[in-house]
Amino acid sequence: MRDEEKAGKLGSNPTSRSEFDFIERIRHRARSHLKNSSLTLPPSSLLLGIGDDAAIIQQFAGRYTVITTDLLIEEIDFRLDTTTPWLLGHKALAVSLSDIAAMGARPRFALLSIGVPRAVWDSAFVDEFYEGFFSLAEVFGVALIGGDVSRTPERIVIDSIVIGDVTHGRAVRRSGARAGDHIFVTGALGGAAAGLRFLERGARLRGKRTRSTHSRMVEQLILRQLLPEPRVTWGAMLGEESLATAMIDISDGLSSDLMHICRESDVGAMIDAARIPIDPLVVNLCGRRALDPLLLALHGGEDFELLFTIHPRDLRRLPRRVGDVPIAYIGDVTKDAGHIRITEGSHVWSLEPQGFHHF
Amino acid sequence: MRDEEKAGKLGSNPTSRSEFDFIERIRHRARSHLKNSSLTLPPSSLLLGIGDDAAIIQQFAGRYTVITTDLLIEEIDFRLDTTTPWLLGHKALAVSLSDIAAMGARPRFALLSIGVPRAVWDSAFVDEFYEGFFSLAEVFGVALIGGDVSRTPERIVIDSIVIGDVTHGRAVRRSGARAGDHIFVTGALGGAAAGLRFLERGARLRGKRTRSTHSRMVEQLILRQLLPEPRVTWGAMLGEESLATAMIDISDGLSSDLMHICRESDVGAMIDAARIPIDPLVVNLCGRRALDPLLLALHGGEDFELLFTIHPRDLRRLPRRVGDVPIAYIGDVTKDAGHIRITEGSHVWSLEPQGFHHF
Repeated sequence: MRDEEKAGKLGSNPTSRSEFDFIERIRHRARSHLKNSSLTLPPSSLLLGIGDDAAIIQQFAGRYTVITTDLLIEEIDFRLDTTTPWLLGHKALAVSLSDIAAMGARPRFALLSIGVPRAVWDSAFVDEFYEGFFSLAEVFGVALIGGDVSRTPERIVIDSIVIGDVTHGRAVRRSGARAGDHIFVTGALGGAAAGLRFLERGARLRGKRTRSTHSRMVEQLILRQLLPEPRVTWGAMLGEESLATAMIDISDGLSSDLMHICRESDVGAMIDAARIPIDPLVVNLCGRRALDPLLLALHGGEDFELLFTIHPRDLRRLPRRVGDVPIAYIGDVTKDAGHIRITEGSHVWSLEPQGFHHF
Repeated sequence: MRDEEKAGKLGSNPTSRSEFDFIERIRHRARSHLKNSSLTLPPSSLLLGIGDDAAIIQQFAGRYTVITTDLLIEEIDFRLDTTTPWLLGHKALAVSLSDIAAMGARPRFALLSIGVPRAVWDSAFVDEFYEGFFSLAEVFGVALIGGDVSRTPERIVIDSIVIGDVTHGRAVRRSGARAGDHIFVTGALGGAAAGLRFLERGARLRGKRTRSTHSRMVEQLILRQLLPEPRVTWGAMLGEESLATAMIDISDGLSSDLMHICRESDVGAMIDAARIPIDPLVVNLCGRRALDPLLLALHGGEDFELLFTIHPRDLRRLPRRVGDVPIAYIGDVTKDAGHIRITEGSHVWSLEPQGFHHF
């Protein structure tokens, strides 16, 4: 049930904009945005966006739809004192784009549900949040086609839904890794977790007010946490070119996410600590602060890099870089089901998953 | 950012089940559920459900995908002291099924995101909630294919996503009503709003402990609020048979939802108060309690009946009843764009939308 407002006191707060006006504005914003990015959309596949009971998308023979949803809760997944509404809008979309990339698919459409307290509604928060969202959506030609707006008693909740598509039979699951496949990861690891540690110790984004080289490096790490870059182009390429045998995005942490692939594929893995692409800023800043860069790279979450496996015969087809994002070979898939071992010099140890979990 | 748990203390609460175990269990539940309801699913259209970065659904030439999402927030959209976890699971799905029905489409797949505080997680709440959800999903052959689980600081949040499909060109929008079309509504109106009033006055569901006829009638009204029956069969029929020219579900209230159709279709409406199918229980119980049954039927929300328009030439093809759900003719579409008039005996007045809004 709903509270007293349900009695139908329309306009009980006449100085506040109504959600209908707001949705109408977002609808126009989404339309003009759609026009700007129409080149990357399949012709006429979106038939109806915001403004009806549901959105309508045309289906095509030989295509698969891929869909994911991510819930972001204030105080659990983000804090307003360490991020900005714009960055949060970016991140809400980024985390779901990353899931679509991890399926080897290309993102096409998004739905965004947001619940906020009245004070937040009456502030500039929601506008800036959507600006951050649209800014990233435009980069990848993703159309906002729906969502929901609700009030909450106190805290902000966001549910980000992204729909992608991929050619028949080319979606990449977690379950396709086979013994002998090579394991790769995009970009660098540990940055997002290190950025979180700096935030927890009181560091904040200061933008132009930041002077020292050290402070600027800390800010870059914080942005790895607050402004993740989903590997959309890498993901779609690894799917459409039938390169990856299994793939996942690193949201929980390398150790946990590699274990997800191992369990679903009924395989194990042997990785080489020396080959793990630790974020250079982590190496630079964290070694001297009692934070072990290797452990951050192994167990720190939210880097939103892609972790994938490649059959040896396909290695020569695999590019070493897409845009400015390189990949690193970190080890091999083994028959030792459910076990990940890691070599560090002459030592070999068993790697236990230690990533983030809510419960 | 996340809180201290993010440091990766796996198993910090060993007596509590992990979300991974829980998701694994839901995955098996969804699979067996899928098996039970496979007769109503299009062959092999679901390729991958829970347990990867995203779900995969096959597309078909000549089909449209329809998708909707609904956010439900504790204390705003429901209260734990007036409902049960099972009823809440039912309602979370019902509200989104109703949106799909209102598009003239058939629901196929659902994703469910839920955030709960730890104390709720450690209780039977989540299991009972999913039981209520699955119970309704089975009725209509809807497969749970994904979602997200998160922790919240205090209150429960739910985001319910449903995906349907419909034959090319047969989706029913809000924008298709034309002057001269007849306006219909399924079932009866005002019951959900009346049930909410009784809950607000302290009435509760007591089940078998309820003795008097009056108490049983009150309980039936409360169930109209807590256990809405989405008009799935009516909606899909009105779409696939190309009967409705415009359609919406009554979630905000008849006055508001009819105005949505009028605005999107650039038309007006003239309705007859005497023809509005007021819930007989509302007539029976509310007249003597200073609650006007007609106003409850006009402005009360959450009945989740379908409101639709029919071209006169198609009236003879329109069934008067589907299953045990009748329809009522309540008036006509006019050229008077954006205005709804209502006749009550010899009086004609202008009907202003007065449904629920969050802000």
